[in-house]
Amino acid sequence: MSAPSAPKTSPGNFFEDFRLDQHIHHATPRTVTVGDAALYQGLFGSRFAVQSSEIFAQKIGFPRAPLDDLLVFHIVFGKTVPDISLNAVANLGYADCRFLKPVFPGSTLNAVSEVIGLKENSNKKTGIVYVRSRGFDDAGDAVLDYVRWVMVRKRDENAASPGEKVPALPKSVEPVRLGGACPKIDCAVYDNILAGSANRFGDYKVGEKIDHVDGVTVEEAEHQIATRLYQNTARIHFNQFAESKGRFGRRLIYGGHAISLARALSFNGLGNAFQVAAINGGRHVAPLFAGCTVFAWSEILACADLPGRKDVGALRVRTIATKDHPCSDFPLKNDDDYDPSVILDIDYWVLMPR
Amino acid sequence: MSAPSAPKTSPGNFFEDFRLDQHIHHATPRTVTVGDAALYQGLFGSRFAVQSSEIFAQKIGFPRAPLDDLLVFHIVFGKTVPDISLNAVANLGYADCRFLKPVFPGSTLNAVSEVIGLKENSNKKTGIVYVRSRGFDDAGDAVLDYVRWVMVRKRDENAASPGEKVPALPKSVEPVRLGGACPKIDCAVYDNILAGSANRFGDYKVGEKIDHVDGVTVEEAEHQIATRLYQNTARIHFNQFAESKGRFGRRLIYGGHAISLARALSFNGLGNAFQVAAINGGRHVAPLFAGCTVFAWSEILACADLPGRKDVGALRVRTIATKDHPCSDFPLKNDDDYDPSVILDIDYWVLMPR
Amino acid sequence: MSAPSAPKTSPGNFFEDFRLDQHIHHATPRTVTVGDAALYQGLFGSRFAVQSSEIFAQKIGFPRAPLDDLLVFHIVFGKTVPDISLNAVANLGYADCRFLKPVFPGSTLNAVSEVIGLKENSNKKTGIVYVRSRGFDDAGDAVLDYVRWVMVRKRDENAASPGEKVPALPKSVEPVRLGGACPKIDCAVYDNILAGSANRFGDYKVGEKIDHVDGVTVEEAEHQIATRLYQNTARIHFNQFAESKGRFGRRLIYGGHAISLARALSFNGLGNAFQVAAINGGRHVAPLFAGCTVFAWSEILACADLPGRKDVGALRVRTIATKDHPCSDFPLKNDDDYDPSVILDIDYWVLMPR
Repeated sequence: MSAPSAPKTSPGNFFEDFRLDQHIHHATPRTVTVGDAALYQGLFGSRFAVQSSEIFAQKIGFPRAPLDDLLVFHIVFGKTVPDISLNAVANLGYADCRFLKPVFPGSTLNAVSEVIGLKENSNKKTGIVYVRSRGFDDAGDAVLDYVRWVMVRKRDENAASPGEKVPALPKSVEPVRLGGACPKIDCAVYDNILAGSANRFGDYKVGEKIDHVDGVTVEEAEHQIATRLYQNTARIHFNQFAESKGRFGRRLIYGGHAISLARALSFNGLGNAFQVAAINGGRHVAPLFAGCTVFAWSEILACADLPGRKDVGALRVRTIATKDHPCSDFPLKNDDDYDPSVILDIDYWVLMPR
Repeated sequence: MSAPSAPKTSPGNFFEDFRLDQHIHHATPRTVTVGDAALYQGLFGSRFAVQSSEIFAQKIGFPRAPLDDLLVFHIVFGKTVPDISLNAVANLGYADCRFLKPVFPGSTLNAVSEVIGLKENSNKKTGIVYVRSRGFDDAGDAVLDYVRWVMVRKRDENAASPGEKVPALPKSVEPVRLGGACPKIDCAVYDNILAGSANRFGDYKVGEKIDHVDGVTVEEAEHQIATRLYQNTARIHFNQFAESKGRFGRRLIYGGHAISLARALSFNGLGNAFQVAAINGGRHVAPLFAGCTVFAWSEILACADLPGRKDVGALRVRTIATKDHPCSDFPLKNDDDYDPSVILDIDYWVLMPR
Repeated sequence: MSAPSAPKTSPGNFFEDFRLDQHIHHATPRTVTVGDAALYQGLFGSRFAVQSSEIFAQKIGFPRAPLDDLLVFHIVFGKTVPDISLNAVANLGYADCRFLKPVFPGSTLNAVSEVIGLKENSNKKTGIVYVRSRGFDDAGDAVLDYVRWVMVRKRDENAASPGEKVPALPKSVEPVRLGGACPKIDCAVYDNILAGSANRFGDYKVGEKIDHVDGVTVEEAEHQIATRLYQNTARIHFNQFAESKGRFGRRLIYGGHAISLARALSFNGLGNAFQVAAINGGRHVAPLFAGCTVFAWSEILACADLPGRKDVGALRVRTIATKDHPCSDFPLKNDDDYDPSVILDIDYWVLMPR
């Protein structure tokens, strides 16, 4: 009955399909709106005043309230999934992630990735693909730029490796490269009371640890709605029928969901950290499942001036998120291993008014 | 204590309340916005570029990105529920459903139904009501037109039948009647890469079957949020207290939820089918419940030219959705009965660029 | 390792931290949008035509469709939580709540509270704080004004009481003080059919009881998304890990969620009550948990003219919401105690066209 024709569904790329220096233009362009901002608000409950209030944002120097940086990250990331990580075994890391231009409701986002490294694993079944992905707005300007590397299955174990190159990646983004997404801020009119925190850049010290205190329980409907909002199609997040027979017996929550939860929790302690300027690196230490309660704590790794800017400084923050473990004891590692409660270990730069 | 007064709650219409040729103007007018589009995105995860991107839509010839056709369908359908199907035993079928004009954020939708057929059942307890329902925008233009028929209870078994007429309905919408909601498309600038599919109208063959591969598990919160978004008040979807004592022991998911899930899944294989032009017929073969994982496959029933148009062609598609049964074996019928996994069998026209 | 520095997380205010006549400016300003309206629609399924349709609202005299009054209430209320009730043992009551000006999408809301009463409890462990909270739009106009009182823990039992004053509060808002948020309505063009109810102000009688018939089951994801939409940070709603060891063993749903559910259910019987003008008082009689099905019934307590207005009248309504108990028998009290199914007893004014 069925007429022969070319297959119509995309199997995604396998390791041997990638080429060094290959540029991949991703589907699907996406106009982000105040609707996306509202749903993101309902899903994460962020309280950073710059993203929450048009008036607050405009008073301090933004043309209008920007979208949450991580919403932009997730939407750009989502576009790369069908091409880069549909056949991924694991998402291994992020590096050199910078937010370059603020994104406002009404903007349309696209994404392009460049293959910057390839390394076959010794078992010949998988290889590591390094990509630099960039998100662009409808003016053609890059709004986000980051590297991630993933372990991808080979379709055919006998296929030759498509290349061997491990790119050099910075351990962290240099402060001179931060701040592109932040216009000049008028710190004098930045209202600590409205923003909900009395602490400015100068009030934080290297080595300071902050327990973000609150906990939030994750529901299946929540992470599915979030991940679909980003048009992220990774199957492991949505298909309980398949996952019930899989490694965990249940749907795995998109790693970015934990990042957004931790960021929202971090308001309690970092309330004036109104913008994520860069992500130096991040590791999804353990999987997160629905029904777990997420907690977080942070350590200040560095306090940096931005060359030429007196309005904002940058805090390098390491945030640890846990499941079902409040963070008053700052759980991290036991000997060399992560504490079993830790799900996320992320190192990033935030901007704060002086 | 309670003063006598006219009852204030609506009991809905029973079979004997309907009249042939009766016109019913439905409550509640509804302005649809980018907020509705975002929530619909989060609930279904659609990736069709025309609805996702203002820029993509404008480049090919739309004044702006239209709302998803099925969102329009659900909102119009929802308005008819309090008047037509509050006392329905079963939703029996759809026919001759056409999308007539694109709907954009900011438009306000109304609905009117006309009773085009009535037939009492031999048990005198129920009757079949045929209505042609139309959705209108705030310019007064019809945006959607469809027939559905439902089995409705009688209030009083002894009441006379209000009429006996079974309308003639087309088995499918003729191609000449398709395309009203689609402006002239510039196929040369339609970007397959951004759209996420290399296959155009000419690449599909009659009889071709496509397994849409992915599966999505449905949660109670998701279908309730969706169905409320459409202001659909059918009680069986929301009231676990009552349904726990009912036929299924649980809430029944709105049939349109399965249609939207199947449509979103069908992107993987029909990525350039950017518009649903018509629904020829549809059957909710079995109920869907929260916790089930929905899969889908499609067969191309026909490939039709639209008279006078060289920009787009129409594919007549039959999509089968299942629960907890991946569709690589194209489940449909065993002898004369549907496979027990099948929940939806829908026959519709989609437009695709040439 | 950790450098000493001032604590960065807010512990909230304890009873002894409040002062009579103290003014507290709350974080976080919030621009409300059509995105918030859509999500609120999806969460509660309201069908009041004025909020649903730009065209309907404009025809009768609004400049555009206003946001749902209770959405405004929840957003203003949410802002007060970190300062007023983070250390609350119980939310004791509301009084003298008036909606003063309509709020439209695009408006930015702020909130300020004034401490108008303090009373230490005899156990010296807690005290009652009375605050008058006001919400303001970006024009600086008050949109909402209400009193609530909460029982707040003391940090130190030995601390002196910060004051002793119990404010006089009205049992109900006088009709002359109603209607600020309602422009002059053109009742002649108010369309009952589109609005979904044939009953106007004159059709209701004091003492009349209305069973709102429908029931809606609440899911964890729904109340969490709603409560985060309002930036309400009360921990008891979100943290299953902590609550599993608490009094109820589970997350307690924000009391305002029950109010919004009851308001949406009340459409079936009060369909033309398009605006909540005031809340005279309200009591969360029993906690609500996910999985429960909410029902509601109402009694008309009074029918009042608004001085100088012939367009709308005010109905004083007492609405009772229950869990897992349909309301055809109007459950309320057994002897002196509330029926165990009752969760909410709220007394409020709604406006209805004449």
